[in-house]
Amino acid sequence: MINLLKGERIDQFYNEDVKIIQNPKVFSYSVDSVLLAHFPNLPKKGLIVDMCAGNGAVGLFASKYTKAPIVQIEIQELLADMGRRSIELNGLQEQMIMYNLDLKEANTVLKHDSVDLLMVNPPYFKMQEKSQKNPNPHLAIARHEIMATLDDVVKMSSFLLKTNGRLAMVHRPDRLMDILETFKQYKIAPKKIRFVYPKMEKEANMVLIEGIYQGSMDGLKILPPLYVHKEDGSYTKELEKIYYGR
Amino acid sequence: MINLLKGERIDQFYNEDVKIIQNPKVFSYSVDSVLLAHFPNLPKKGLIVDMCAGNGAVGLFASKYTKAPIVQIEIQELLADMGRRSIELNGLQEQMIMYNLDLKEANTVLKHDSVDLLMVNPPYFKMQEKSQKNPNPHLAIARHEIMATLDDVVKMSSFLLKTNGRLAMVHRPDRLMDILETFKQYKIAPKKIRFVYPKMEKEANMVLIEGIYQGSMDGLKILPPLYVHKEDGSYTKELEKIYYGR
Repeated sequence: MINLLKGERIDQFYNEDVKIIQNPKVFSYSVDSVLLAHFPNLPKKGLIVDMCAGNGAVGLFASKYTKAPIVQIEIQELLADMGRRSIELNGLQEQMIMYNLDLKEANTVLKHDSVDLLMVNPPYFKMQEKSQKNPNPHLAIARHEIMATLDDVVKMSSFLLKTNGRLAMVHRPDRLMDILETFKQYKIAPKKIRFVYPKMEKEANMVLIEGIYQGSMDGLKILPPLYVHKEDGSYTKELEKIYYGR
Repeated sequence: MINLLKGERIDQFYNEDVKIIQNPKVFSYSVDSVLLAHFPNLPKKGLIVDMCAGNGAVGLFASKYTKAPIVQIEIQELLADMGRRSIELNGLQEQMIMYNLDLKEANTVLKHDSVDLLMVNPPYFKMQEKSQKNPNPHLAIARHEIMATLDDVVKMSSFLLKTNGRLAMVHRPDRLMDILETFKQYKIAPKKIRFVYPKMEKEANMVLIEGIYQGSMDGLKILPPLYVHKEDGSYTKELEKIYYGR
């Protein structure tokens, strides 16, 4: 039996194939994680890392599509603990492990030049004097660059990735320039970008980007747009397929 | 009467409101120019410049929507001459002027810090040993960075633009990193990007980008996608509106 703490609940996905422990008052994964997990081609073998893992949603979703080992790194103990119990709840202890660790110390549990695919849903917002932070400290750390910056994330990624290993990230379009610059600085060549639009005729509110470590800086592709909602507010076919497998 | 040279024809747009002299064997404007002309908000007053103007299509289209003066710069004499005759054909001599000039010398006819909106459809392709160039020298110069590079274009733009003046460019998505870097290098802050897709489910094949000279580097927006064709190959409503005003 898995213990659920006060306020926690179990959400089920893919016809109940994947179960995720959430606590809406502390932290829930969001559509960002769902889309990130479905963005890169998942290797069948080799090492996958899910950094800034939160309650582990990205890795848990990915486990549905690959048998490759998945290492998760999350700095917040409460979230890492939810993730660990979700791994157990899904019987994935052989495939997955969650470390409660600052990503800047990921090199203490993972080797240089060892990772095939690194997935990350990092904090989106720059720390600025004027920036409003979420009063919930768990959400504040997950959303603002308090404990880790974009530079920290990409720097560690380039240390961990094999040559031609891939970094897949979800972020916000207004950070696109920073993202591309930081990728380039750490020798990760952006290869695929997919913008996510809340619905038709709206501006993009998310960007999915995949880069190759030590790849050639040429050949960036802008994939077809991904729409989340139809005009009537219901999910698009693509989102329904992602959420429900239909 | 306007002289038409051998091989030239007149194309008409917007219910025949705009007439453009073309020579399909030498150079024709393409959908890129049409989309560029419709991308930025056109100022009602102030100075507009159309650089890498070709046969003048961008400026001629823009003249339909603003009474602001439009200065065109084109290095190829044959194309500049077509553009001049199109200006005359449309009776726009009071509003428009075409200079047959290398854009790197645009500062000989335009002042520093004088331009409100600069529109440019530059050569898309980097010069590389291996790159196949068009055997038609007019198209080769228009499409490859033979006479001017992205750096030349943006450098001159930043020299000519007023503070808060805008640079609007059409280019290829695989050059996105170069474009953003070059904009930043010359203090032009990218503010709006719109990707153009040939049809649904396809990768983008053009990018429209607008930046503000001396603007803040924050606040980039990714506008809704622009689709050129419907599934059946006919133009989308948006393109029909642009081409035919309906």
